[in-house]
Amino acid sequence: MAIVTLLTDFGDEDGFVGALRGVLLSRAPDARLADLAHHVPRGDVAKAARVLARAAPCFPAGSIHLVVVDPGVGSDRRAVAVSAGGHRLVAPDNGVIGLALARLGPVDQAVEIDPSRLTTSRISSTFHGRDVFAPAAGALAAGALLGDLGPPLDAPLRAGPPPAGAVVEVDAYGNLITDVPVGGPAALTLAGQTLYGPVRCYADVPVGALVLVAGSEGTLEIAVREGSAAERLGVGVGAPVACVPTPGERGFAP
Amino acid sequence: MAIVTLLTDFGDEDGFVGALRGVLLSRAPDARLADLAHHVPRGDVAKAARVLARAAPCFPAGSIHLVVVDPGVGSDRRAVAVSAGGHRLVAPDNGVIGLALARLGPVDQAVEIDPSRLTTSRISSTFHGRDVFAPAAGALAAGALLGDLGPPLDAPLRAGPPPAGAVVEVDAYGNLITDVPVGGPAALTLAGQTLYGPVRCYADVPVGALVLVAGSEGTLEIAVREGSAAERLGVGVGAPVACVPTPGERGFAP
Amino acid sequence: MAIVTLLTDFGDEDGFVGALRGVLLSRAPDARLADLAHHVPRGDVAKAARVLARAAPCFPAGSIHLVVVDPGVGSDRRAVAVSAGGHRLVAPDNGVIGLALARLGPVDQAVEIDPSRLTTSRISSTFHGRDVFAPAAGALAAGALLGDLGPPLDAPLRAGPPPAGAVVEVDAYGNLITDVPVGGPAALTLAGQTLYGPVRCYADVPVGALVLVAGSEGTLEIAVREGSAAERLGVGVGAPVACVPTPGERGFAP
Repeated sequence: MAIVTLLTDFGDEDGFVGALRGVLLSRAPDARLADLAHHVPRGDVAKAARVLARAAPCFPAGSIHLVVVDPGVGSDRRAVAVSAGGHRLVAPDNGVIGLALARLGPVDQAVEIDPSRLTTSRISSTFHGRDVFAPAAGALAAGALLGDLGPPLDAPLRAGPPPAGAVVEVDAYGNLITDVPVGGPAALTLAGQTLYGPVRCYADVPVGALVLVAGSEGTLEIAVREGSAAERLGVGVGAPVACVPTPGERGFAP
Repeated sequence: MAIVTLLTDFGDEDGFVGALRGVLLSRAPDARLADLAHHVPRGDVAKAARVLARAAPCFPAGSIHLVVVDPGVGSDRRAVAVSAGGHRLVAPDNGVIGLALARLGPVDQAVEIDPSRLTTSRISSTFHGRDVFAPAAGALAAGALLGDLGPPLDAPLRAGPPPAGAVVEVDAYGNLITDVPVGGPAALTLAGQTLYGPVRCYADVPVGALVLVAGSEGTLEIAVREGSAAERLGVGVGAPVACVPTPGERGFAP
Repeated sequence: MAIVTLLTDFGDEDGFVGALRGVLLSRAPDARLADLAHHVPRGDVAKAARVLARAAPCFPAGSIHLVVVDPGVGSDRRAVAVSAGGHRLVAPDNGVIGLALARLGPVDQAVEIDPSRLTTSRISSTFHGRDVFAPAAGALAAGALLGDLGPPLDAPLRAGPPPAGAVVEVDAYGNLITDVPVGGPAALTLAGQTLYGPVRCYADVPVGALVLVAGSEGTLEIAVREGSAAERLGVGVGAPVACVPTPGERGFAP
């Protein structure tokens, strides 16, 4: 019973995710479906990349991750299937799987999905989730090999964005997630404010306080207890953060 | 292991869908649950009909589709169970299954659910999803026959709305889905604008362009690349569309 | 195949629920996951308590309910696992399970989860859902006993809020759910208005009418047919309701 995870920007009102689930269960009746997220902002590949990197490594080896955040649907962007660290990923080649691959381990095999190898009756130009990606993931869940889906890639996968010393994600709580690794005392300047920390947890500070915390994925986050740091500071993804010397580093008492 | 799909307008904050899942798994512990959508606009039967028609046919024959979009809950509208094309549907008789039936195939059997045949301890007047529809779908998933749920219908199913030459749905991307079938070059007039097409895919036009595309379900759609056609044109469901002669039809070079 | 339900305030855009699903399936590959709700308002323990009490009892005995609505994450609030009425619950000890326990039956066993007994590689201070609660629920789903997770509680569970003669929940339809039990004719005063009822169902009154209905969980609710009573009256959770003598009680014709 293969696990197939689903990550889209389809939301939950139109039944597009329902169509994917139907295609998957038609092709792999024993597959176990598990949602990663479906309210990724429309077409936000960078956000989807972070969601995938956050959740996919929590699944057991053998899992198949179906990603349909695909603003270039119908263009000549490739559809790819990739194996890494015992996981397989099926996605458009738009950088969305780059960050997850960095966490899952080196790529073992990568193919370009050839839709003619999928026994689909039709392929629309606007819903490749239903007509290309889900059939490919369903085939894998039913026992197909990666090489059954198409030829090896003739050009490298499109990379995701590199680390940048910046806010790289705003989560639904309004926490500002940076790409600055956690490690000892830290101080960050963001939007003209300098924050010292990290504090141990939200509950260590008063409701409404702006704090620096050690995020659950190993990088620093700026948060407001029971509030939104994004709203408080008026910043979002891409806002530069600068590490500044901490009192500890300058030899001051903390 | 029967597949049971769920389609409601319950949203995801109150646990009403959770209650349905519990009832289903209590009655059919081996059932496999698959969501179609739960953020259908409240009480929007026409939208739910389109979601069901979009997603249900993607599932394998043998699937059971539970639909609870039911603004008339507690009134004398009938609760029905219907089989068509190897699928079974359990829903209020308010037109919500009409469009799906048109795609699944002719109705083989239709019964009015008799709540007294369901072993429920109580039937509220406001939550028939939990007290009538889910128990009925759970019974089917556990092996009951349609005829076990109640007597044959003594009057026809309430039909859904007929095709109208109009916008019939706005999806969450703001795409305007019409009921005009795709077929060769086309030109539509909508809200005073004439659009020629269809283009092959969104990526063929610049970001922000308003275009006519061949929708994934065989009808023409009006879209804005990476934007909302509904917002751009200020129209919604019911807005009339008119097909106009295309340059090709008039013998002009395209 | 244990059923594990999930209730969080994580929403559906960041992949946090996806991470929980991955942890659960990594530890209990045969577990069947069922969502209760994930759009509970952020940190709203009282609302989550009501959602859990609504949905958990609909599941069969043997189910495991994982609850992560945890504004005190990382503080010294306890993580607990409790069995009652054949169900097991894994949650922060912040009152969120109180109302469900009142419906499931007396507590049979309750332990404080000792994270050192969970084979987790790391425990963040901000994502105990992934690092403590899901591993504990996954262990139970894989066959662990409650006592394997930690020692018996040395102090009582934190109780939920007591009944109060008030609006105790606003659902996503804008219905105002009170804690006043249904029973015969009733009249409630709320926000300066007196409502008589309950009516049998929404369909008994015109669209837009404000009515008193017998709620599906045995208490009175104030509703607007196809509208929002919360918006109409401008009140929310905590608004006091007063029962007043009904015409019937005073001997008047109804």
